[in-house]
Amino acid sequence: MEVATGTKCWDWTIPKEWNIKDAYIEDSTGNKIVDFKKSNLHILGYSTPINTTLTLKQLKEHLYSDPDRPDAIPYRVSYYKERWGFCLTHNQLLELKEGSYKVVIDSKLTNGSMTYAELVIPGESAEEVLLSTYICHPSMGNNELSGIVVTTFIAKWLQAKKNKKTYRILFVPETLGSICYMSHNIKEMQKNVIAGFNITCIGDDRIYSYIESRIKNTLADKVASHIIKNIGRKYKIYPFIKSGSDERQYCSPGANLPVVSLMRSKYDEYDEYHSSLDNLSTITESGLLGGYTFVKKCIQAVEVNETLKLTVMGTPQLGKRDLYPSIRKGRLDRWHRNMVDMITYMDGKNDLIDIANILKVDVGDLTEIVRILKSKDLLVRS
Amino acid sequence: MEVATGTKCWDWTIPKEWNIKDAYIEDSTGNKIVDFKKSNLHILGYSTPINTTLTLKQLKEHLYSDPDRPDAIPYRVSYYKERWGFCLTHNQLLELKEGSYKVVIDSKLTNGSMTYAELVIPGESAEEVLLSTYICHPSMGNNELSGIVVTTFIAKWLQAKKNKKTYRILFVPETLGSICYMSHNIKEMQKNVIAGFNITCIGDDRIYSYIESRIKNTLADKVASHIIKNIGRKYKIYPFIKSGSDERQYCSPGANLPVVSLMRSKYDEYDEYHSSLDNLSTITESGLLGGYTFVKKCIQAVEVNETLKLTVMGTPQLGKRDLYPSIRKGRLDRWHRNMVDMITYMDGKNDLIDIANILKVDVGDLTEIVRILKSKDLLVRS
Amino acid sequence: MEVATGTKCWDWTIPKEWNIKDAYIEDSTGNKIVDFKKSNLHILGYSTPINTTLTLKQLKEHLYSDPDRPDAIPYRVSYYKERWGFCLTHNQLLELKEGSYKVVIDSKLTNGSMTYAELVIPGESAEEVLLSTYICHPSMGNNELSGIVVTTFIAKWLQAKKNKKTYRILFVPETLGSICYMSHNIKEMQKNVIAGFNITCIGDDRIYSYIESRIKNTLADKVASHIIKNIGRKYKIYPFIKSGSDERQYCSPGANLPVVSLMRSKYDEYDEYHSSLDNLSTITESGLLGGYTFVKKCIQAVEVNETLKLTVMGTPQLGKRDLYPSIRKGRLDRWHRNMVDMITYMDGKNDLIDIANILKVDVGDLTEIVRILKSKDLLVRS
Repeated sequence: MEVATGTKCWDWTIPKEWNIKDAYIEDSTGNKIVDFKKSNLHILGYSTPINTTLTLKQLKEHLYSDPDRPDAIPYRVSYYKERWGFCLTHNQLLELKEGSYKVVIDSKLTNGSMTYAELVIPGESAEEVLLSTYICHPSMGNNELSGIVVTTFIAKWLQAKKNKKTYRILFVPETLGSICYMSHNIKEMQKNVIAGFNITCIGDDRIYSYIESRIKNTLADKVASHIIKNIGRKYKIYPFIKSGSDERQYCSPGANLPVVSLMRSKYDEYDEYHSSLDNLSTITESGLLGGYTFVKKCIQAVEVNETLKLTVMGTPQLGKRDLYPSIRKGRLDRWHRNMVDMITYMDGKNDLIDIANILKVDVGDLTEIVRILKSKDLLVRS
Repeated sequence: MEVATGTKCWDWTIPKEWNIKDAYIEDSTGNKIVDFKKSNLHILGYSTPINTTLTLKQLKEHLYSDPDRPDAIPYRVSYYKERWGFCLTHNQLLELKEGSYKVVIDSKLTNGSMTYAELVIPGESAEEVLLSTYICHPSMGNNELSGIVVTTFIAKWLQAKKNKKTYRILFVPETLGSICYMSHNIKEMQKNVIAGFNITCIGDDRIYSYIESRIKNTLADKVASHIIKNIGRKYKIYPFIKSGSDERQYCSPGANLPVVSLMRSKYDEYDEYHSSLDNLSTITESGLLGGYTFVKKCIQAVEVNETLKLTVMGTPQLGKRDLYPSIRKGRLDRWHRNMVDMITYMDGKNDLIDIANILKVDVGDLTEIVRILKSKDLLVRS
Repeated sequence: MEVATGTKCWDWTIPKEWNIKDAYIEDSTGNKIVDFKKSNLHILGYSTPINTTLTLKQLKEHLYSDPDRPDAIPYRVSYYKERWGFCLTHNQLLELKEGSYKVVIDSKLTNGSMTYAELVIPGESAEEVLLSTYICHPSMGNNELSGIVVTTFIAKWLQAKKNKKTYRILFVPETLGSICYMSHNIKEMQKNVIAGFNITCIGDDRIYSYIESRIKNTLADKVASHIIKNIGRKYKIYPFIKSGSDERQYCSPGANLPVVSLMRSKYDEYDEYHSSLDNLSTITESGLLGGYTFVKKCIQAVEVNETLKLTVMGTPQLGKRDLYPSIRKGRLDRWHRNMVDMITYMDGKNDLIDIANILKVDVGDLTEIVRILKSKDLLVRS
């Protein structure tokens, strides 16, 4: 989808489209010491065109580096104020010698459009799950490409099977993209979205994490909390406060959608964040697979979750249905124990995730038992 | 009461009645090596009749022992599948030699009835307290006889005095008995029972414990929690999950009665459980007395609990009623402090147990103060 | 205001008025060994007149001392039982020799009145804040004068500025004074008082503290809890239980006003309490200033607190209003971070204190941001 420059999106306006062909800094000996063709991070995002020669002092006003990570090219943009600049490592900055420097940026800021992609996969129900990732940090590994990769494979998986819920999958520029999308679709989203997952920073293999939604007691929170606690790996749950990615937009007071951010290492919290260090070596195969599995398990939990109740009064007699040992020797095995305990909470008030939390098991461990009890006509939807 | 074989009780059916006269295993030299007359635990409960001679290998398919407690005869039954068997210590099992064994079980499975006893002690109010214990584990000490003994003495105590509440006291076979009883009385029970106590495993002297009801915020839970915390001995509160005794039946979703299990050492949690070790040496005089006192205090708390409010605006002037020292020297003594603090919470919303919890005292410590304040016309029921 | 002897105040009656000119104990050599003119604490408050000569044994029945603080003259009264007595240090008591003692108390108990002062400072709104302190412990420093001083200066500060709320400020004898005042004004108070602060023991410099109201979830509690946690000094929050000052009267079940007690070292909890040690050396300039500031901040929090919501859908674009850095370098500074986070919670449900608690900042730190966002038309009252 293309949204034209100048389009109003709630409090925001789509800015000009920026395109760039080349950019470099040449020293007095004709060496390209900073070259956009070597790393697109060298250019301050959204830089206006320039072609001039400057003293080192003049040049330095347009250079951005990160003293805390002296070997990294920082990632910087200036969307809403027209200026130009270059980003470079702090070590390179320190080595620059007095002299004159030729500066060329071959870019254009013109009326154009903002681009985003939307995929809707219809399910049995009009109830929707929102999946969203962003597409505006070129060359960033964990804080960008991982989200696109995981969301793409999740979309393929969802397309290949029958789903109970409808899936609305968005690839949007961060902040402006989600605001723009909501400004056109908010009524429908508020009506249909029962849970949403913002997918970002999901490709490294250090930790699992999620950011709670603003109002916290949503289905998305319930699912993410349940899954992350059963993932068997180190995890961290971040409160909504200090959020900054698209969960902030989806949860903003007027929109108020039930959206959490699913992540491995959270933006702002890992060393390589927003610099040339966040490259393909930050994300790993197992990191991506873990992130993909985390998202998948959250979606499966939404799909299987339902509120059931017993069709009989009292405890059903499991023995006559061959679901109980005819002689008990000591404690029940785990499978029977889970079945007996599940039944106890099938009162039409607890959903399966509630029950899994009470039993301290993964909700996925209960689905086979549910299938069997349903096949014996012991359960109905509440 | 007798309930005939074949009677439907919700999802269950009363099985045949089992009676046994004798049972033994004789070795080839004519020695009775396992003899029902020495311990009724030697027979697998509900065994069908048999009279045959077997090889050791054939016999072993019908022998039950417990390798974890090699000197104990385990307690085993097979109510719902017809089979026969003997239980013996694991050490004896290991010593059995090759040879032929004569096996005799002189038992009958015939149409008959399930037996239970019910005692209703009417009180001033139709509001009922349910007391239930079970009668189906012959020769078990803590996990059976203790419950019967304590419940019997509680019944005697209740019969000898005037009570505010009505008491419904049941002696039933576990699971089937409580299900059967409820299947005939559930409407009345749901209408009248304000708190219920399943009394089991209440005769050893190691710990006090109770199992919370399924929905947890009942009067029975409130009382048990209050009393156990003020009992001044080691205690444990078990969540409803993994429950297995009749609290599971009374709290099952369709019945949903406000019932907790009061215990000393919980079933499944002490070494002698369900074996010949759980005999009269497991229960002690002080254990039984402690259990009896625990149940009694819970009942007394239900009896005295009420929600009161002050008849005057503001703090009543206690001095003019000789309820306050005319000169205060330092801090108030405990009794006056309790009275002053009680008054403060007599707002018609907190009941006496709430107030005792706030004051961190036993509700029994407040009853004398309540009596005095009532005699001064300072309190009315809310 | 004067309330005549004999006036009924709910459950209480205004007693006779007590006036005293002189009182002393003279030993047989004519030395005044205890002299009211040296310390008014030497007289048991409310003592009836006497002029007689006694043996030491007879005298001792009328002497009050505190063995735990042998150098302190204890503070004692006998309002509601007519008696006479002297207070002295325990060391002096121990040194008294056998002999005859002349005892003179030149006091009068006559029909008169109880005195209190009331100041109402009208604000924009009829909503009232109650401030109350007491005036019945002559010569007590922290447990009396500090409250009068701080409340007086708070009253001066409030009179010198425009206020949103109306302030009802009371100087009353403890217990009887507040009961008497409420007995005449309770309807109006229950209608208008949104928060109340009983101000006592607020002049030493050891700790900050407050006593929660009885029902705990009032605006007064919310404010006191927020302010004390941000005061940057050691603090203690006391539950309502065991309260004894006028918060007990204002919160009594029938009155049920939303009142907390603001204090430095709580009555009953510091060494000098209710004795000659609680003199001007217990209260300090910094202690009083801290107490004054604590009360002031609580009042300011009530004044600024409001519930606001955004006027735009989604996150407002702060950049175009010069409220956001045009290039972000690493994490946002604290001021911008607070603004962004505040906006996120401006949903018309959280008030400013709620938001300050979420952001873990003092509500005072948010008022400037609120002013700016309002000036940009981004906020309206909910």
